[in-house]
Amino acid sequence: MLKKFLMAPGPTPVPEKVLLEMAKPIIHHRTDEFSKTFAEAAEGLKKVFNTKKEVLMLAGSGTAAMEAAIVNTLNPGDKVLVINAGKFGQRWRDISKVYGMEVVTLDMDWGLSVKPEQVESYLTANPDTRAVMIQGSETSTTAYHPIKEIGQIIKTKADTIFIVDGITSIGVHETLMDEWGIDIAVTGSQKAFMLPPGLAFIALSDKAWSFCEKAKIPRYYLDLRRELKSQLQATTAYTPTVTLINGLKVVLDMMFEEGLENVYKRHQVNGDATRAAVQALGFKLLAECPSNAATGFYLPEGFEGGKFEKFMRERVGITYAGGQDHLKGKILRISHLGYHDAFDTITAVSGIEMGLAKFGVDIKLGAGVTAAQEILKNYIGE
Amino acid sequence: MLKKFLMAPGPTPVPEKVLLEMAKPIIHHRTDEFSKTFAEAAEGLKKVFNTKKEVLMLAGSGTAAMEAAIVNTLNPGDKVLVINAGKFGQRWRDISKVYGMEVVTLDMDWGLSVKPEQVESYLTANPDTRAVMIQGSETSTTAYHPIKEIGQIIKTKADTIFIVDGITSIGVHETLMDEWGIDIAVTGSQKAFMLPPGLAFIALSDKAWSFCEKAKIPRYYLDLRRELKSQLQATTAYTPTVTLINGLKVVLDMMFEEGLENVYKRHQVNGDATRAAVQALGFKLLAECPSNAATGFYLPEGFEGGKFEKFMRERVGITYAGGQDHLKGKILRISHLGYHDAFDTITAVSGIEMGLAKFGVDIKLGAGVTAAQEILKNYIGE
Repeated sequence: MLKKFLMAPGPTPVPEKVLLEMAKPIIHHRTDEFSKTFAEAAEGLKKVFNTKKEVLMLAGSGTAAMEAAIVNTLNPGDKVLVINAGKFGQRWRDISKVYGMEVVTLDMDWGLSVKPEQVESYLTANPDTRAVMIQGSETSTTAYHPIKEIGQIIKTKADTIFIVDGITSIGVHETLMDEWGIDIAVTGSQKAFMLPPGLAFIALSDKAWSFCEKAKIPRYYLDLRRELKSQLQATTAYTPTVTLINGLKVVLDMMFEEGLENVYKRHQVNGDATRAAVQALGFKLLAECPSNAATGFYLPEGFEGGKFEKFMRERVGITYAGGQDHLKGKILRISHLGYHDAFDTITAVSGIEMGLAKFGVDIKLGAGVTAAQEILKNYIGE
Repeated sequence: MLKKFLMAPGPTPVPEKVLLEMAKPIIHHRTDEFSKTFAEAAEGLKKVFNTKKEVLMLAGSGTAAMEAAIVNTLNPGDKVLVINAGKFGQRWRDISKVYGMEVVTLDMDWGLSVKPEQVESYLTANPDTRAVMIQGSETSTTAYHPIKEIGQIIKTKADTIFIVDGITSIGVHETLMDEWGIDIAVTGSQKAFMLPPGLAFIALSDKAWSFCEKAKIPRYYLDLRRELKSQLQATTAYTPTVTLINGLKVVLDMMFEEGLENVYKRHQVNGDATRAAVQALGFKLLAECPSNAATGFYLPEGFEGGKFEKFMRERVGITYAGGQDHLKGKILRISHLGYHDAFDTITAVSGIEMGLAKFGVDIKLGAGVTAAQEILKNYIGE
């Protein structure tokens, strides 16, 4: 018997009741029954995004929503600033380049977060910048960027929009889209929303919609004007992912029942506990300003991370995530995203301890678990 | 108690074992376990498409794959011929126009199928045509187009590709992509593939891939070069729809166990039986050359089709499909697509008989069912 634990930052575990909801016989999408669920889910999304604007649902991965953000608001030749601090920052850069934008990147070592002043001074020197693109949480490095502070800066610029990939931050860290001045917020189903992948979300501020009016890049499947028109009628322009949207309604009910503040608190506590644990084991965190979605830490010098990951996944049953690109094999990432509670953290940490010990790393068994418990004991049963 | 029957041409009923497969705990997509399933599903798709080329899987609706066909092979200004015989022919036209192609439409009354000679004479007069776009089965009219014959014509033209939306024909009617000279074949998960919506498939011939090399429209999420590179390694460029692909593997196993010839035969027999039934009831078929995906027929003059559909769906439990655009309320479409067998046809026909009788239409109860039985009795138990 091998119980499986998914501890990678997406896809994240799907709650049993959501799996069962999605296993119900499929219904037709052009019906009052589906429109009712759709409308309720759409309302729920607004609460999580903290926006008065529509949150549109797209059949696709998060990348589809990232591309939609760009092609619906910008034009070739537009100057854009990309905060490039990891794999997903690179994705903003790559998509923008494909569409002929003049891309300036603020390149950072993986693990670092941008400083609001860096963005401010760039924008002061380059007032013709049309968009700033960033991740809320850069999944590849587990770093959190200061979205709120940067939003306040961009809010004052009439000709610049702030585009945030919130794929591993929305639903993890409180995100006040309207108040913070986020003009486009994007996320996907398979992270904090505890669903399988295949459904993406995107919301635009009034400023972003006004950019949309002047955006000339041809688009069809990702044309948000057409989607807005349909979704205001509680339907979609093209066939929606019926089962995922039915599941989303259940997920949102779960999130509201727990209370969004408690959802964020849970991520914070499990993040704190995991970080304390890996540090107690003597490892160095990758992120200077860590996200509560996942914890990344450096493995011992020369350690074969890839082999360890594979062993843990196939023989022990725990799927962690390794590093990407130049960090491949050098770091390990432990997710605390979505359907994850205190004992998942204990399992994750204990797996690291026993697994690394088996791999010959000098580990003080129990040190990480104890450090995690010190934090989690104040949380459980409360 | 109200049992539900989904008799609309997509989404179609999902078999219980597929629902249960997809309700299993989700797994990570960058693992050998998932790659194995992915590779097996990809091999299975090739068999259904009858192609030696890769069949790529995209996270999106069928429309995403239609757009991918265009943006990956054509350039603005290219002359394209669209067979416009219904709602989905219009979609080819609309996407092509968005991307600046010079679109010529061969407009036909809804219900008609194009004649191969019409395409041939157009291409002889317009040898600079870069692509011909068509539906295998035009879902809005339930008409089948002569794909094989048109393929043979286009096969001889080195500078023209044949793009087929097989969304309700692949898996319903035998489709020999390579042999017939189909250059791009597109389909979606929620039709013959008996899955929820959200996964689309697309395959390109060598000729289409050579067009791809010269295609300059910017694209990122739908860039098939990037997808091909990843999918040849049994992975995807962006997060795949893990659950749908796991379900696909089960669906393909079911289809191969039944035997593809038997799958086509089943659609043929249920189509024949449904058509015989509605004609025995005195109704006129919409399609001259009907598809085996669904049967469309004209409702009595002045009859309120929309009201009837709603009553049948909400009070009787059967979801049929009505007409779209100018046929709204005037026709009814009965699906025999996917997970549909003889007694589903009996239910569909019996529902029409009793429902219309309740709505005051002069119906000879049992006449349709009897006509269907005459055909189905030779099929059941064989």
